[in-house]
Amino acid sequence: MGNIVRRLAVLGSTGSIGQQTLDVVRALPHQFRIVGLAAGKNIDLLTKQINEFKPRFIYYQDKKAPTRLANTECEFLSLEDIACHPQVDTVVVATSGKSGLSATLAAVKAGKNVALANKESLVMAGELITSEAKLNVAQILPIDSEHSAIWQCLKGETQPAAQLILTASGGPFRGYSPAQLKGVTTKQALSHPSWQMGRKVTIDSATLMNKGLEVIEAHWLFDMPFENIKVLIHPQSIVHSMVEFIDGSIKAQLSYPDMRLPIQYALSYPERLPNPQLPRLDWSRINNLTFEQPNLDTFSCLKLAIEAGKKGGTYPTVLCAADEVAVELFLSQRIKFIDIANLVERVLEKHQSVAHPNLEEIMAADTWAREKVVQFITGG
Amino acid sequence: MGNIVRRLAVLGSTGSIGQQTLDVVRALPHQFRIVGLAAGKNIDLLTKQINEFKPRFIYYQDKKAPTRLANTECEFLSLEDIACHPQVDTVVVATSGKSGLSATLAAVKAGKNVALANKESLVMAGELITSEAKLNVAQILPIDSEHSAIWQCLKGETQPAAQLILTASGGPFRGYSPAQLKGVTTKQALSHPSWQMGRKVTIDSATLMNKGLEVIEAHWLFDMPFENIKVLIHPQSIVHSMVEFIDGSIKAQLSYPDMRLPIQYALSYPERLPNPQLPRLDWSRINNLTFEQPNLDTFSCLKLAIEAGKKGGTYPTVLCAADEVAVELFLSQRIKFIDIANLVERVLEKHQSVAHPNLEEIMAADTWAREKVVQFITGG
Repeated sequence: MGNIVRRLAVLGSTGSIGQQTLDVVRALPHQFRIVGLAAGKNIDLLTKQINEFKPRFIYYQDKKAPTRLANTECEFLSLEDIACHPQVDTVVVATSGKSGLSATLAAVKAGKNVALANKESLVMAGELITSEAKLNVAQILPIDSEHSAIWQCLKGETQPAAQLILTASGGPFRGYSPAQLKGVTTKQALSHPSWQMGRKVTIDSATLMNKGLEVIEAHWLFDMPFENIKVLIHPQSIVHSMVEFIDGSIKAQLSYPDMRLPIQYALSYPERLPNPQLPRLDWSRINNLTFEQPNLDTFSCLKLAIEAGKKGGTYPTVLCAADEVAVELFLSQRIKFIDIANLVERVLEKHQSVAHPNLEEIMAADTWAREKVVQFITGG
Repeated sequence: MGNIVRRLAVLGSTGSIGQQTLDVVRALPHQFRIVGLAAGKNIDLLTKQINEFKPRFIYYQDKKAPTRLANTECEFLSLEDIACHPQVDTVVVATSGKSGLSATLAAVKAGKNVALANKESLVMAGELITSEAKLNVAQILPIDSEHSAIWQCLKGETQPAAQLILTASGGPFRGYSPAQLKGVTTKQALSHPSWQMGRKVTIDSATLMNKGLEVIEAHWLFDMPFENIKVLIHPQSIVHSMVEFIDGSIKAQLSYPDMRLPIQYALSYPERLPNPQLPRLDWSRINNLTFEQPNLDTFSCLKLAIEAGKKGGTYPTVLCAADEVAVELFLSQRIKFIDIANLVERVLEKHQSVAHPNLEEIMAADTWAREKVVQFITGG
């Protein structure tokens, strides 16, 4: 990166990915400068971040935020205005849910580098975002460990890959039978064996919905037919994904499960930066890497996601929205673990998809799906 | 590769790598044309190859070769003349032993692409060959599975790697104690668990000398200090080697152990070619990839090789030559398996190295080492 300092806006700075992004910036202060920070409701943490990183622009969702934020010298802007501000080189979209979507779209339209951790953007609006990115020469830099792995493996390869192999830890219920799944608790589902993540994505990892969403993201990010995207269970979470090439050769990317590596790679791309805080694999402690096929019948969220992805249109939006509401219902202990898949399936069955949807149609499908879940639950 | 047909000379066409090179050409007849073939003593096979591939130039070592070879329309040239012939684009150096060295040198001096399977070239004359390659803009394309793996992982990366991790199957005696090694037979040593190879390299795999030679090759091929080249035992021979980058990220290359893949990659580089005859990894059958540290005390050939590599000068030549004679002695059952390492060590101890040797000095060290082994054996 030479002597160029990259100016970053971090949308969702108080979440898990946002905080780890700031960890990377803290470790590499001569490479990156924070010019924008945006958060939802955690005003205490946002205040600390503002004091430490002194951004020029801020956004917070909570209208009742204490006046002390109003007293900073930062300019208050909307998410979208931060995302496309001329003083921002790279936008890190680490917000959760659909709030990331319009900011992502604003950033790609402005031709920014978009370091994307927000799953919903590509799942709900993959066609829209990738075509706008192409049109505006914006680069989408994946932050998910799986997509970062694939992206690293594709580096320097000039021909299309033959197959993408997304690895999945399998979550806390790997190997469970459908009967065993019936009785699992919220606490069990929140105990991920290898990754420390937010609550929503942890539940999605337990149902394998997360992997299904990643398959859809991979489809859009790497322009790969669904038929050529495979999921492989790898409980140790060391191999983050693989790419098979047309000659049968496979490349894999490995590291300890630590999101700071894919975050840093997205920020420093196309270069790599030494960061003493990132752990190096200790091969004297790694004896065994295991692999198994996913059970799509037991973990039907994965199957539902791949099917929704293949059907396209507004199906992935509905999948995403229905899952979000269902996971909330499970976390508040109003439905069982297995009801997440059942609810999503029922909502998908009722949906009438729109082909090549625009943003309004996507948002309408999102609203429709959320209402439909509530309707099913309340027996309406 | 578009419509360009690459013209190949295969030196050592009747050996294991040579035959597999012709298998690749047979599978991809529109991409490659054989213009030169060279063999040692297997005139029957060479005759068949000449009839099938109709090369323009041939070489054979055996002076008493039947006159039918003299009757072909091929031109008889020396190894070196074939290696630097203007009608040759890529020279595949698949000869065994030091006969490959002068041909490799001739090819790099002529600015050819040199697909290199001959270990001795880089071990004995790494400094000479890599500096000549640089000077003459010749490209050395590694054919060893390990170096091909590293080369594939480095593709597109613009910064030096932090560490190269060469994997090794561990050979048939993995886990053996020094006491157990004492009693092993020639037959046991020739039974490699995962690779089908020639006899010399199979014994070198059993002693781990082969991996030591590969460490020295990797040092020259990738300009990597010995301190940053590690060896890791991986009995399944699926991960062919790995590269660790400065950010701690690791890339690995995987495939079934089949030399046709690295051969084809070297021939088609920088592109990849689809070849239905190359097997694709079947992840429903791969459950477990294991890794362990090599035991350098029991398998002291590996330690000797790394030390010789670090010392440089003519030490690697002496290592190589002494090992070749010692392996021959073991194969003819005149010495025990553990005597291979002992003999090599004793010869290295007696050697007075020449720094930055030229070809004559390398050849003199080679002769000296061979004589020294015989001297030790005959008690001279």
